[in-house]
Order: sequence, then C-alpha cells, then structure tokens
Amino acid sequence: MSEDLFKFSVNARDRDCAARCGTFTTAHGAFQTPAFMPVGTAATVKGLEIDQVHATGSRILLANTYHLAVRPGEDTVAELGGLHQFMGWNGPILTDSGGFQLFSLAQMTKVSEEGAVFRSHVDGRQLRWMPEDAVRIQETLGSDIAMVLDHVVALPNEPAVIRDAMERTVRWARRCGDARTRHDQALFAIVQGGLDPQMRVECAQRLAELDFPGYAVGGLSVGEPPEEMYRTLDVTVPAMPEDKPRYLMGVGRPEDLLEAISRGIDMFDCVMPTRNGRNALAFTDEGSLRLRNLKHRLDDRPLDEHCPCAACRRSRGYLRHLFISGEMLGPILLSIHNITYYQRLVADAREAIRRNRFETFRAEKAAGWATPAGEETSQPA
Amino acid sequence: MSEDLFKFSVNARDRDCAARCGTFTTAHGAFQTPAFMPVGTAATVKGLEIDQVHATGSRILLANTYHLAVRPGEDTVAELGGLHQFMGWNGPILTDSGGFQLFSLAQMTKVSEEGAVFRSHVDGRQLRWMPEDAVRIQETLGSDIAMVLDHVVALPNEPAVIRDAMERTVRWARRCGDARTRHDQALFAIVQGGLDPQMRVECAQRLAELDFPGYAVGGLSVGEPPEEMYRTLDVTVPAMPEDKPRYLMGVGRPEDLLEAISRGIDMFDCVMPTRNGRNALAFTDEGSLRLRNLKHRLDDRPLDEHCPCAACRRSRGYLRHLFISGEMLGPILLSIHNITYYQRLVADAREAIRRNRFETFRAEKAAGWATPAGEETSQPA
Repeated sequence: MSEDLFKFSVNARDRDCAARCGTFTTAHGAFQTPAFMPVGTAATVKGLEIDQVHATGSRILLANTYHLAVRPGEDTVAELGGLHQFMGWNGPILTDSGGFQLFSLAQMTKVSEEGAVFRSHVDGRQLRWMPEDAVRIQETLGSDIAMVLDHVVALPNEPAVIRDAMERTVRWARRCGDARTRHDQALFAIVQGGLDPQMRVECAQRLAELDFPGYAVGGLSVGEPPEEMYRTLDVTVPAMPEDKPRYLMGVGRPEDLLEAISRGIDMFDCVMPTRNGRNALAFTDEGSLRLRNLKHRLDDRPLDEHCPCAACRRSRGYLRHLFISGEMLGPILLSIHNITYYQRLVADAREAIRRNRFETFRAEKAAGWATPAGEETSQPA
Repeated sequence: MSEDLFKFSVNARDRDCAARCGTFTTAHGAFQTPAFMPVGTAATVKGLEIDQVHATGSRILLANTYHLAVRPGEDTVAELGGLHQFMGWNGPILTDSGGFQLFSLAQMTKVSEEGAVFRSHVDGRQLRWMPEDAVRIQETLGSDIAMVLDHVVALPNEPAVIRDAMERTVRWARRCGDARTRHDQALFAIVQGGLDPQMRVECAQRLAELDFPGYAVGGLSVGEPPEEMYRTLDVTVPAMPEDKPRYLMGVGRPEDLLEAISRGIDMFDCVMPTRNGRNALAFTDEGSLRLRNLKHRLDDRPLDEHCPCAACRRSRGYLRHLFISGEMLGPILLSIHNITYYQRLVADAREAIRRNRFETFRAEKAAGWATPAGEETSQPA
C-alpha cells in the first residue's frame, strides 16, 4: 500500500494509560488525534455555514453515505464536484458505510450473505446494497476515509445472532477491501461482536489480519450502560492494531470521550453536540445547562467565559430568549457552542497526553461535570 | 435640538430625478442612504449569526418593538444591557413603534384617543399602549432611531376612517415628541393617509411643522398595486422635509426600492429577503430563482457569480439539495444571499446617484429582472 495518499503516525503516548496523540494525513490535509468529527449527515452540519464549522476548531467532518445515496444520490454529488466541493469543506471528510442506517432508519431491511435489501426512508424505493456498493458509493462521493459495510444487529440479542453478524462483518470487510480502487481514500474496518468480550477480540484479530489502514469499534452506545461500553473497550482496544487509528463510532457524551481516549481510542463522531444544541442544551465544564429554564432569563453571563465561540459573545438571557421565541438562531448558536466545546475538550486532551497528565485531566473534568450546577442531564433531549 | 447625538446630511443628488445620497450619524455609528435595513424582529435576523449579518453589508438593522415588548419584555432587554448588547450589534438600530403590529398581529385591538388596548398574540395578556408607552419602551430598548405610534387602518377603507386615523396619527406624533427624553435616539414621525393624495400631503405638512429628525411613509405595501404606491409617493415625498431622512416602511421588492429611491426615499426595511429566502426563493439580476425546482439539480453555478456571499460559494445544485432535504442551511444561505443582494442593490444605487445616472441604472436593473430567466415571481411565497 505504499502508493496510498494517507498515513497515520503516533506522536505521543501518556505514561499512565493507553491514551495517545497522533496525526492522520489525507489528500485534503491532516488532523490531530484524539479527534472529534461533527456529523454532517446530508453534507451539512445542521444549521452551520461551513466557515462556522471551521471556526469551532473542527478539522474533519463525518457525512452519512446512506442519506447522501438516497438523496441527492452519489452521482449528483459527483457531478457537483464531489463531496468536498459540494459542501464547501476542503479538509478531511469521513463517510460511514450506511451499515448503521440500514438497520436503524431504512425500512424492511433484509440481509443475506450477498448484501442488504431495503426500502429508502425518504420515498420507499427498494434498494440493494452489497458491500461492494458501499465502497463504490463512498468512492463516488470522494471522502478521505471510508468505512466497510458492517452487519449491525440490535442489542441485547442471542449470542448466535451476534456471532453470525460479526462473522459476516469480517467477510464483508474483506469484500470491501477487495472492491476498493481509490488510493486517496482510506478504508477502515469495523469491529462488531456486541458486548461479548471473546467475540469482540476475535473480530478485532481477524480484521487485523486483513491489514486495513484504520479500525473502528461499531455497535456500541446503542442504549447499553456506559460501564458496559467501557468494559467492552477494555478488551477490544488491546486487540486492535497499535499502529492504526482507532475510531469509536457514534460516541458520545464528553465523559465517554475521555473514558475512551484513556483506553486508546483516537477518533469519535456523535450527533450529541448538534442535536442537544438544537434542543437548548449547552455543554459546559460545570455540566449541562438547559437554556429554556427560567433561571437564565436575566443572566448576563456567557455560557462559558473562556469559550471563544459566537454563542459565548451573547448572554445566557439572550440565548434563552431565542429558544423561548422559537428563533432559529438559538439552535444555531448552541450547536456552535457545543461543537466548540467538544473540540476544546479533545484539544485539551491532546495537550494533557503530551504532558503525561491525561488521567489527572480526566478526573478534573469529571469533577467539574459532577458539581451541583451540573444537575441537568447531558442525555439527548 | 443642538444637543442631539445624531444628524443627517445629504451628500449627492441625482440631476434627473429626486434620488439622493445621504449620511445618517448615530451614537452607534453612521450609515449611508439610500439604506436597506434587514428585519431582526425578535432581536435576531432570522437564521443569521450577527457576524453574518454584518458580512451582508448591512449597517443598520430594524427590530420590532411590539415583539420585544411582548417577549422577552423591554425591561429584560434593558437588564441585559439594552438592545445593542442584547443582540450583539454595535451599529445603528431602528425600532418601529408597534403601530403596524397592533393592527395586524395583536388581538382584539381597540383604539381610543388615549391609545390602544389589545391582547398579546403570544399569551393573550391584555396590554394598553399610549403613544407615550411606545416612546418609553423604545427608549428602554435603546435603539438609535425610534418611531412614533401611528394609527394604522386597513385599506381600502372609508375616507372618514382614513382621515380620522391620519389626524390621530398627527396628534399621537406630537404626544410622542413631547414624551421623548433621550437625545441619543432620533424619533421619526410617520405619514399616514391611505391612498388619498390630499390626506397624505396634509399629513406630511402637519408633521413637518412638528420638526421631527426624520419622516416615514407608513401604511403602504399592504396589498395595493405597486403603481398605487408609486403614485402616492409622487405626491407625498415632495411634501416631506427636504433636509430630513425619508423612510418607506415595510417596502419591498427590489424594483419597489428603485422606484422609491427615484422619488426621494432614503430608507427601507422589509422581511422579503429573509422570508423569501426561507422559502427557497433567491433574488438575482436575472429575476428570482426558486431553488426547489428540478432544473437546479445538477447546476454547478452559483446563484450569482459576482456575489461575494457565502451562498454564492456553493452551487445551485447544493442549495437545492439543502431545501429538498429540509436542512436549516438552505434557509440560512438564501437569507444571507438575499440580504446581500439588497445591500449590493442600494450600494450600487448610491454609486449611480453620485454619477447622475440613477435612472439609467434603474432601467438596466428593470430590464434584467424582466429577462426570460426571470419568469419566477418575486412575491413572497
């Protein structure tokens, strides 16, 4: 793979845990890890103009292949210059494979060894995706990092069902790797296996043999208690290649990011900053704030006096007013703030790792989130 | 009024029509006329972060006193630092008086000589506004330009009803002027009188005697044919003081702005750029584009290759995708584009006036808007 136009290197490792800093370089520039990717499902981070996304400190975005394939269609995106040109983002982009959406959003999905047949949630059109289609569509979109098609099953589930899906995920990963043609696009494999340590380790080891340029942990943060997720990471991450980036898909709360970084995870994506922001919930170092609360009415303080974002140039009272009045700017400003919060969190995490104080940093953050002011939940509203 | 902290001067007059360029200076800076004010009803231009508003070229904004008084309340705005601090806009702000909303949006409005009694459209609370209240509330908000409370009636209407409202508007204007206490806020009077030339002229003359620092034409663009509005301006504007700014309230389409500028109007506000933008309609020199149309699907051109706005860094195909997918960014980008379009239009109008070629400029613009590509209506969707 010497001709590949991407590479990953680890630059620093914390002495006291598995946390590490790295650099992933793509044809559209590099990003530092641990990295958080805002979700731009339909080639837009909801409510944010692309310059505003950049101003949050984000340096890599995620877009959803399923959504883009269904609407406007990957060929339309390609005709309009590819995903970067289409959405005006010149930095790295990761696309997922659609695996998660086929089993959560699409209708009447049926899986065979060959692939999945399903109906679009937009217009009911029947579509058929083989692993090779997931690769072809992502290559057409032109993302910098693509994901293999995985077989996702609901949890909890029968061990036999989880094993079957895990083994199919490995076979599909191989087919995806074989189908790949673009050397400016890194294809990451996905470790499945539910909450079963043995199956997770087996999946990770079998995928490692296939030598992908990156590995993800999928199928977590689907409703299980956080401790279950952490325990699964405890066994799964050590079975993943040391010299490849490790991506925990769809996670999560700020505390989940730090727990996972401590266990050696390098990349994250989650809708929580934007979805919670649209629902008037702001992340801060003292826990979450619900901006619709009456107590913010006359509060002239910013959400966070150290935050450089556009929302923090306004008062909490103004932000409350926007939500109470149903103004679009409320969701916009809180999305900006929350993404900025996540980016500052991973930037501070990188700095803490370089100084060999990540565990101290994590404990300090956890203490702040648990202060009395943080009585408000950070769960999605 | 020598202590007043604002002033208006005319810098250029077109030789061939009544169009003129001026500068209005306030305690929050100056703006050039002819000027277009985007509408920030609830202390936010819908969907735009304040830096985005500035980037459109806007240098003065309008906010609606009725809306802000009803929610969050003028005292809340004052406690949070006043309107400028509240919404983060350090330039000039004009507030209307609520007169129009009392007769369009509020419920069960009853007018007596003393003032208006009505119920809030938000919570049904009964409120009582005298002309003095409109001044007090606007002084509490802290805008740079305030408007007198006027008595607005529906058109068409009985001549006696229109005369009664016009005469009450003059009496209320005098009461507003007497109630004024802030010398950093310019109070503009409003000419009413329906479509009756004699009543308009009489109203303008009687208000001129009261020596306000600015004069508005109210009660137009409420459904009458554009020609009726132009005819009313033909007789009304010459009766308004030459040395004071003239503001045509709530108008209008790009062609209405140029027609009114030609007749000597200096200031405008209208929701059309933002409301139409939210409804997928974009203004261009070749007429309006409806971005939901299938024909834009694969169009890689910007809305306007000469426009510097954020929307014009994307393709028409991408903008269409955003609207078809119900993404917030569609309304945001088209609002940005349309306000930018209006600001470029008035900036070009100012330049044309300075060169004594405004009528040529207006004819060129009108010809562009009438081209075959402009088959799509520019009426609000």
